[in-house]
Amino acid sequence: MTKILYGNIIAKKIRNQINKKVLCMKKKGQRPPHLATILVGNNSVSMTYVNNKIKDCENVGFKSSFLHLPNTITEKKLIKIIKDLNKDTLLDGLIIQLPLPKNINKENIIIAIDPDKDVDGFHPLNIGKMTMGIKTFIPATPLGILTLLNYYKINTQGKHIVIIGRSRIVGMPISILMAMKRSPGNSTVTLTHSYTQEIAYHTRKADIIITALGVPKFLKSNMIKKSALLIDVGISRVKDSTNTKGYKLLGDVDFDNVYNKVSSITPVPGGIGPITRSMLLKNTLIAVQKRKK
Amino acid sequence: MTKILYGNIIAKKIRNQINKKVLCMKKKGQRPPHLATILVGNNSVSMTYVNNKIKDCENVGFKSSFLHLPNTITEKKLIKIIKDLNKDTLLDGLIIQLPLPKNINKENIIIAIDPDKDVDGFHPLNIGKMTMGIKTFIPATPLGILTLLNYYKINTQGKHIVIIGRSRIVGMPISILMAMKRSPGNSTVTLTHSYTQEIAYHTRKADIIITALGVPKFLKSNMIKKSALLIDVGISRVKDSTNTKGYKLLGDVDFDNVYNKVSSITPVPGGIGPITRSMLLKNTLIAVQKRKK
Repeated sequence: MTKILYGNIIAKKIRNQINKKVLCMKKKGQRPPHLATILVGNNSVSMTYVNNKIKDCENVGFKSSFLHLPNTITEKKLIKIIKDLNKDTLLDGLIIQLPLPKNINKENIIIAIDPDKDVDGFHPLNIGKMTMGIKTFIPATPLGILTLLNYYKINTQGKHIVIIGRSRIVGMPISILMAMKRSPGNSTVTLTHSYTQEIAYHTRKADIIITALGVPKFLKSNMIKKSALLIDVGISRVKDSTNTKGYKLLGDVDFDNVYNKVSSITPVPGGIGPITRSMLLKNTLIAVQKRKK
Repeated sequence: MTKILYGNIIAKKIRNQINKKVLCMKKKGQRPPHLATILVGNNSVSMTYVNNKIKDCENVGFKSSFLHLPNTITEKKLIKIIKDLNKDTLLDGLIIQLPLPKNINKENIIIAIDPDKDVDGFHPLNIGKMTMGIKTFIPATPLGILTLLNYYKINTQGKHIVIIGRSRIVGMPISILMAMKRSPGNSTVTLTHSYTQEIAYHTRKADIIITALGVPKFLKSNMIKKSALLIDVGISRVKDSTNTKGYKLLGDVDFDNVYNKVSSITPVPGGIGPITRSMLLKNTLIAVQKRKK
């Protein structure tokens, strides 16, 4: 029977754990963890993400600050704001919502963040540490995948994992992590992407598939082997007039089509998405511990 | 007909180019590039490597400094020495010969090096930048492989590359680089290692195999597909009484066994080894340019 790997259950447990820790901190007279989010411009999807992050903070008792900056801000001014926030000893985590306007160099902005406050795990120093297996912030989505694998006690050692998509925030880091000498990890990893000649040729051989492509219902039954385990990171909004919101969320996997062939599968929504959201909170708590050291 | 991809030819050209640049610098009244090497203890293989590096520097007109420290040195003292060298404005590149004695934490030492002098490309900030596609020092062996692929105009785009070995200095970085949106790169990459269930299962499917295992003659004809391209990074010393040195160097590939089946192959010795050596010089020259900025 196919096992559905729910992420929302795990996310709820993590939020509860974090909430307990925050209550404990407050009891001891300590201030709660504090996350600041910077948003440049008025991208509506970005706004939704930022609002969710603020809501998530409130739900677990974190303090959250929100800096909404105009589209016209210069790179220099933005870096100045970041450097000031870096110095703020009452701030633990700092994230810049991406994408940024085109006149701003994303790399320069990410590098300006204090690596010890970089709870997104996007700073090159943190990516380098992650790659070297040194304890550090791991970006939320890969960390969410590791957490899900851990929770469901999925053995990845020696398994062949095929990853679809090589983005800096999902495909690339999870490919590095899963190939490393760690648990979960120790897998044989194939990283496929837009230049791969035939993605199905690779996915058909995989014990585990992690897809982060953003193409709804891309992965069909004829592209996987029997009893494969599927982790669906893709989330696409597709118009749906029967839904009150006017849209529905679809993953990269054609869920109904593959359901009877797979051993386990993460749903969309309710799979990797909610765990990913809770990982930002977890990283902010790690930042607090880093500051205490 | 099988093409042998000689690395020593490329290395010679690179050394000549570097030598010309150094002569040009000296003509302009500038000091030559300066590389310092630290060796802790008396490991004989390490000694050979360090001696080669010093010789390579002399051959192209670089200044080289050698600090030979006792096995008994503490981590704290070693870090102090590194921090002093970091401040030396007359020094461009600084490398610490590995392995280090067990009482010294390798990570702490690597992190202590100024990333702008880290011509080995081992500092996490540089590894992170490399992973993000930001211009930085790339470790010598992966950079040597890229240089070889470039020199022989080998098209890697969309090709399936299987890598054997996940070391921090070869397998891991080259797997990241070859999967990236770059040239050479844009390949579908499978990273195999000691936990891979059957390496041959993967290598048999590969268009290109990069092997960095250190097991002499590991890769045989029945483990590869026809017309594969083989890049042999493995170098093992094997006893050989017929040789005046008492040993011979063997790669991971059983050269004679695969020769008629492959399209192209790097020899051992004379393949990746000599290019790798010249890449340290190239990185030191990049460090000079970084300092000028």
